[in-house]
Amino acid sequence: MSESVLHSFGFGIVTRNSAGEIIEVYYPQPVMNPESSLSAALTSVCGPENNTVEINDVLHEELAEALLRTSESSTVEFLNKLAESSPAIILCLIATDYPPQSISEAYLKLHLLSHRLCKPHSLNLDGLFGVLRNLAWTNEGAIDLNDLPARQLSARLAGNVLEVSSVDKFPKMTNYIVPRGVRIAHTARVRLGAYLGEGTTIMHEGFVNFNAGTEGTAMIEGRISAGVVVGDNSDLGGGSSTMGTLSGGGKEIISVGKNCLVGANAGIGFPLADGCIVEAGLYVTAGTKVNLLDGVGTLIKTAKAKEICQLTDRLYRRNSLSGTVECVPLHATISLNDDLHSHN
Amino acid sequence: MSESVLHSFGFGIVTRNSAGEIIEVYYPQPVMNPESSLSAALTSVCGPENNTVEINDVLHEELAEALLRTSESSTVEFLNKLAESSPAIILCLIATDYPPQSISEAYLKLHLLSHRLCKPHSLNLDGLFGVLRNLAWTNEGAIDLNDLPARQLSARLAGNVLEVSSVDKFPKMTNYIVPRGVRIAHTARVRLGAYLGEGTTIMHEGFVNFNAGTEGTAMIEGRISAGVVVGDNSDLGGGSSTMGTLSGGGKEIISVGKNCLVGANAGIGFPLADGCIVEAGLYVTAGTKVNLLDGVGTLIKTAKAKEICQLTDRLYRRNSLSGTVECVPLHATISLNDDLHSHN
Amino acid sequence: MSESVLHSFGFGIVTRNSAGEIIEVYYPQPVMNPESSLSAALTSVCGPENNTVEINDVLHEELAEALLRTSESSTVEFLNKLAESSPAIILCLIATDYPPQSISEAYLKLHLLSHRLCKPHSLNLDGLFGVLRNLAWTNEGAIDLNDLPARQLSARLAGNVLEVSSVDKFPKMTNYIVPRGVRIAHTARVRLGAYLGEGTTIMHEGFVNFNAGTEGTAMIEGRISAGVVVGDNSDLGGGSSTMGTLSGGGKEIISVGKNCLVGANAGIGFPLADGCIVEAGLYVTAGTKVNLLDGVGTLIKTAKAKEICQLTDRLYRRNSLSGTVECVPLHATISLNDDLHSHN
Repeated sequence: MSESVLHSFGFGIVTRNSAGEIIEVYYPQPVMNPESSLSAALTSVCGPENNTVEINDVLHEELAEALLRTSESSTVEFLNKLAESSPAIILCLIATDYPPQSISEAYLKLHLLSHRLCKPHSLNLDGLFGVLRNLAWTNEGAIDLNDLPARQLSARLAGNVLEVSSVDKFPKMTNYIVPRGVRIAHTARVRLGAYLGEGTTIMHEGFVNFNAGTEGTAMIEGRISAGVVVGDNSDLGGGSSTMGTLSGGGKEIISVGKNCLVGANAGIGFPLADGCIVEAGLYVTAGTKVNLLDGVGTLIKTAKAKEICQLTDRLYRRNSLSGTVECVPLHATISLNDDLHSHN
Repeated sequence: MSESVLHSFGFGIVTRNSAGEIIEVYYPQPVMNPESSLSAALTSVCGPENNTVEINDVLHEELAEALLRTSESSTVEFLNKLAESSPAIILCLIATDYPPQSISEAYLKLHLLSHRLCKPHSLNLDGLFGVLRNLAWTNEGAIDLNDLPARQLSARLAGNVLEVSSVDKFPKMTNYIVPRGVRIAHTARVRLGAYLGEGTTIMHEGFVNFNAGTEGTAMIEGRISAGVVVGDNSDLGGGSSTMGTLSGGGKEIISVGKNCLVGANAGIGFPLADGCIVEAGLYVTAGTKVNLLDGVGTLIKTAKAKEICQLTDRLYRRNSLSGTVECVPLHATISLNDDLHSHN
Repeated sequence: MSESVLHSFGFGIVTRNSAGEIIEVYYPQPVMNPESSLSAALTSVCGPENNTVEINDVLHEELAEALLRTSESSTVEFLNKLAESSPAIILCLIATDYPPQSISEAYLKLHLLSHRLCKPHSLNLDGLFGVLRNLAWTNEGAIDLNDLPARQLSARLAGNVLEVSSVDKFPKMTNYIVPRGVRIAHTARVRLGAYLGEGTTIMHEGFVNFNAGTEGTAMIEGRISAGVVVGDNSDLGGGSSTMGTLSGGGKEIISVGKNCLVGANAGIGFPLADGCIVEAGLYVTAGTKVNLLDGVGTLIKTAKAKEICQLTDRLYRRNSLSGTVECVPLHATISLNDDLHSHN
């Protein structure tokens, strides 16, 4: 990466707490891998390093001049629109994909993921939890928790309710971006930083953490933990679980392949290969001992799930008479309901 | 059905997108099976076929005259109230229960279900997904997804947040109608088109899809999939699942009988007969092989669940020592907690 | 308890229905066990019994005088602030911890729990369901269900949406109080009356009922039913269940000890001792027969879970080859992810 090419940048609208600190940033049009001329224009004003600057009148003029010299008139128009309406505009430049050092960098990276400008696991998010603030997400916007009690009391005394929808380090994605071709029945369960492929439906019981998501068409009625990616044309049944690596779970990085079905109330603690089914209600962890059977039911071997997880087109089930967890070949094709998926 | 008798009708308040198209309709007082004189008055103005008309001044006058001739003064008063306050009033007439052809017809049918004017499975909803639009449901009402980015940016530039609660074809029921005698702890999980019997409590983990619901008193802490109906005095435990037929599940139409209990984190993929219990944590699909036992524990036969699902007053359990799924006679009476259910 | 010492009190801001009845109360600063001089000042004006009074000008003056005589100037300032801004101020005094007799008493007790002024099970809440009203919780505040249809219609005719977030006897906690040092990713799932220890994270799939909660650091991605308390440094995995005693469940009072992990989609119907793990996907009820094994896998005995539930540092699992539920000694230490928990 040459010095003059930016990793990404965004003009953002910020929320500040009562102490004047930035606590949240909304980037309406984040940009990944900008053209070198655009990168050069921005860095000529703001410097070549990762940097966040507040847009005051002087800087606005300098940026506009630099951008117009490179024929970036649409970027100037967007900047003008923001700066004329709001006094709380910043420009965040990421030159190098270091661990996020500020709230503005952290939010820019989360936006890049949810705008589908980069895939999960492709950004350096080390230390993200330490950078983000725990905030109250309300009908009056993000509020610092230190400011909250007074704001709640003021609202009630004025006859209003301050609706506190979430107290979290991550906001919900849809208040920032709704990517093309998705349905999200209950948006409180998809964090900013989720990556949802076109054709994805997240039902009410679905959940998607940051740096996680779906690669294409999918019906998600279960939980996609942080870091988990679900392949194209797969289905997570209602209440199903993918084990995360952040808390409680093991060290295996979990994923779900293409054309998979994890049944309702089922779960996996290992990467599921393409074309596999886990039957409803069965939780298979990485260490679960499984009887691997051939097509006529003969035992090939007993192995931990993580030792056979590369096998495609298999059904994981618990034999309902013997109680044994089995892995058997699967030849039927899974297809998602066309009517449900063709009208996003 | 004679030509002059309507299936149903409603005066509705509509939301339009920036292109002027109707994207959503709220019917405060939908009517099913109107009296023949009322039907005749409406069809004399609007014609005898399924039809949606916008109420302008001329049509308002014509309708009022026709209605007053049949002594339908309360209907006229309601029409006057709507039309005087809002410029976005329609009248939707359904003469014949064909597949819904428009958003106004689709919403009218969903209202009829949630107003308890007709039971699940009693309306023709073929092709419903294709008729409904995928919309952003926000604190500013329903918004066309094409209009959303500009609306979000405008809100933020004005210092506000556009809260996007859902991106879906179906709205939440309670923003249209809260039927008598129910509690719904978390309304985001009950779609318009759900049918909730009087005495139903939907706890936070409960969920009810459209064309599905409960027939009477019920404690619902699990998921009622599209098409599923739960009988009177039954209990779906926390996180329990009823397998739907729309996606992933099989072809069996699922229902839950009267006086049933599906335990927490349990699930069923077959119709559960009256008085049955599925123990907590056990998922029984239609094809699950089950050992059917008599009252003293003797094996009667081994059968798939769907083959014995007509048996009432049974407990489905997994023997915790042998791992075998068993179906045993049940004589204890299940009763919901009176204190919880008597104060709706 | 001497006559002059109050159990608790609070100045509250009330919501009334269209009939003028109090339906909801917000206590910004509830007080438990006030000093005897403060108790004496309040009871000298309001009497020594449980009592709720409306603050009019006369009473305001009397209270201010009595409080100033005991140097309670901060209380007077708070009272002045409330009364000057709002005409809907009450004072609720609880002298004796009887079953709640009014909405104002019931709400005060729920506030005491969520403000961490007293622990779950320490208050008399008998008959609580009968005292609380089932209300619509909306963006315009609490609304009596009898008033709701007219309010919904008015909102829509004015071009607005009346957002009905919940129809329930209990409001969400965070619209009243966010205790220090917690994250609650989705606040709709924590009722007022929950007790959340400092260092608790409630993820999107977590849930906490009233009179229930966590004693300290905890990662809660499962459901804490009414009455259940989770010990310090424990983890409820995604979708896990703790069986309540209100409905459907048994008579055992459930709790989770310190340093426990209930795995994803697992569940318990018995009190879990310190240092225990229930593996993902396994539901163990009080009556589940369990094979108790020693450290080398020898069977000690077969017993119901409730008979061995006092044993600490055990793993409950279902042997994936035999299908038998087993309880085995556990020596590994469970530790929650530090990065996740150190930034609340």
